[in-house]
Amino acid sequence: MASEFEKIERFVGMFSAPPPPLGPGDDACILPLKAGRLCMTTDALVEGVHFSRKHFSLGEVGHKALAVNLSDLAAMGAAPDFWLCALGLPSRFGGRQLEALARGMLPLAKRHRLKLLGGNLTASPLLSLTLSLGGWAQKPLLRSGAKAGDKLYVLGSLGEASAGLWAMQRGLRVPARFLEAQRRPTPWVEAAQALSPHIHAAIDVSDGLLQDLGHMCTASGLGVKLEASALPISEALWRRFPKRALSFALRGGEDYALLLAVSPQKAKRVEREWTPRTCPLSCVGSFIDLPGIWLDGRRVSARGFQHG
Amino acid sequence: MASEFEKIERFVGMFSAPPPPLGPGDDACILPLKAGRLCMTTDALVEGVHFSRKHFSLGEVGHKALAVNLSDLAAMGAAPDFWLCALGLPSRFGGRQLEALARGMLPLAKRHRLKLLGGNLTASPLLSLTLSLGGWAQKPLLRSGAKAGDKLYVLGSLGEASAGLWAMQRGLRVPARFLEAQRRPTPWVEAAQALSPHIHAAIDVSDGLLQDLGHMCTASGLGVKLEASALPISEALWRRFPKRALSFALRGGEDYALLLAVSPQKAKRVEREWTPRTCPLSCVGSFIDLPGIWLDGRRVSARGFQHG
Repeated sequence: MASEFEKIERFVGMFSAPPPPLGPGDDACILPLKAGRLCMTTDALVEGVHFSRKHFSLGEVGHKALAVNLSDLAAMGAAPDFWLCALGLPSRFGGRQLEALARGMLPLAKRHRLKLLGGNLTASPLLSLTLSLGGWAQKPLLRSGAKAGDKLYVLGSLGEASAGLWAMQRGLRVPARFLEAQRRPTPWVEAAQALSPHIHAAIDVSDGLLQDLGHMCTASGLGVKLEASALPISEALWRRFPKRALSFALRGGEDYALLLAVSPQKAKRVEREWTPRTCPLSCVGSFIDLPGIWLDGRRVSARGFQHG
Repeated sequence: MASEFEKIERFVGMFSAPPPPLGPGDDACILPLKAGRLCMTTDALVEGVHFSRKHFSLGEVGHKALAVNLSDLAAMGAAPDFWLCALGLPSRFGGRQLEALARGMLPLAKRHRLKLLGGNLTASPLLSLTLSLGGWAQKPLLRSGAKAGDKLYVLGSLGEASAGLWAMQRGLRVPARFLEAQRRPTPWVEAAQALSPHIHAAIDVSDGLLQDLGHMCTASGLGVKLEASALPISEALWRRFPKRALSFALRGGEDYALLLAVSPQKAKRVEREWTPRTCPLSCVGSFIDLPGIWLDGRRVSARGFQHG
């Protein structure tokens, strides 16, 4: 069995990691400072809470741990720059398994040119990953910036991730893309950066559309009108779960779509410019001066999904 | 039972936390940038690995989680500035227990004027705390800066923390200070900053003197001569464990003393200036051009203590 230090070397060796003192290997690392504002987020995945080893490969766990943190940076309109990786590893978790975890992280780490600067390895009864990511934005997007009259856009689609989880837990057969949405969510980093100059406010949908939209409304001191028919719910989702599709889209978590507030003056331009891109962008409603979330004219509760 | 968001509000409310976007409450926080180099560290405490609820109060767990991270910043000669706090809480962990944990963190957070900028709360089968701390140094102290001929100093004392753990696990009666050293270690933040201009290299002793000294030697490309009789081992430790005291001091972990490399020209001045301070500072050896750790002339293995 590899020692703690051998494991660390093996893990760090797989990523782009500057030598100490800038990267791992001293008591602390030294962060690279650039122009702009440095945004930082931390998010954890815990075995039995956010994933089960029965339904997730180690590579998928690794991917998702990075994806959920990248999605937070995307919601700030920030360009990812570096990460710190704190892992809790069960006693029988060997070098090969650590490599499988790292291999799942590699594509996102490479794609976003993330520098691994530090971390921590500890024994733990259950596998856990607590990542902290840093990124840069000239003008970070906040939840609080929406204005009355702004259009509400969803970047990405809704409901498939929770439909995937629902199916996994019950052993139901569903289209592979639902499972993929649950296991390998896409953080919309570049898309958010491209749209960022036109956006007043943003948040990512980790706890369900209504709940996260509720945070955005509260922070901005506004309410919102939603049109159910405009929500980006795939035909595949409607077909497989005709009675539940809307509920998955409204209250299901882990879609990691982004909610964007866009001024009505810029809405047309945003839509026109965005048309050829692959990630769906849908106008689903608008912000209003009245509190609450109004779905097709009826007020709905902001209650969403809790990982626990 | 309080919801996730109520718990977060309650916890954040106990600390000095700027409003979003600088502090908790958005998808990411924005770090305050100052002059100097920004040092960052992350370290975790996991129930059953680093502490047991039988032997540690929640307040002690909270204290220790901050202390071990502050000790890393101390080893960089950095002035602590902010922290992110990721907690894994068992399902029956209520608001009161969270408050007890926070109360244990408060004195260190206040003393070092730490701003709570972000974090994460998740369910977890076992209590875990993964903290990330940031601090500033004009010229960070590295493990790699020791020069042949430098004196090796220990700031703090050695062995009592592991003697405390040893006694706890076996139900032995020991002086309260051993248990205190294990449960409530002191991070030598101000002391390290005060001495920092005279120091070539530093590391903190979390895994045992020999092991951490081994890292310093490897990073600096040197060896070291140690005098056993000079090690800061308390009379109380010698009296209670006459046969084990030296082993606790050499191989026991979690002392969070600092090892400092000081040029021989500055050694006298450092000692003279330091004399009246309360934290013990002991010259225990010197760095040499020969690899290895030589204790009273005999080479010893750098093997130390592993938390697992």
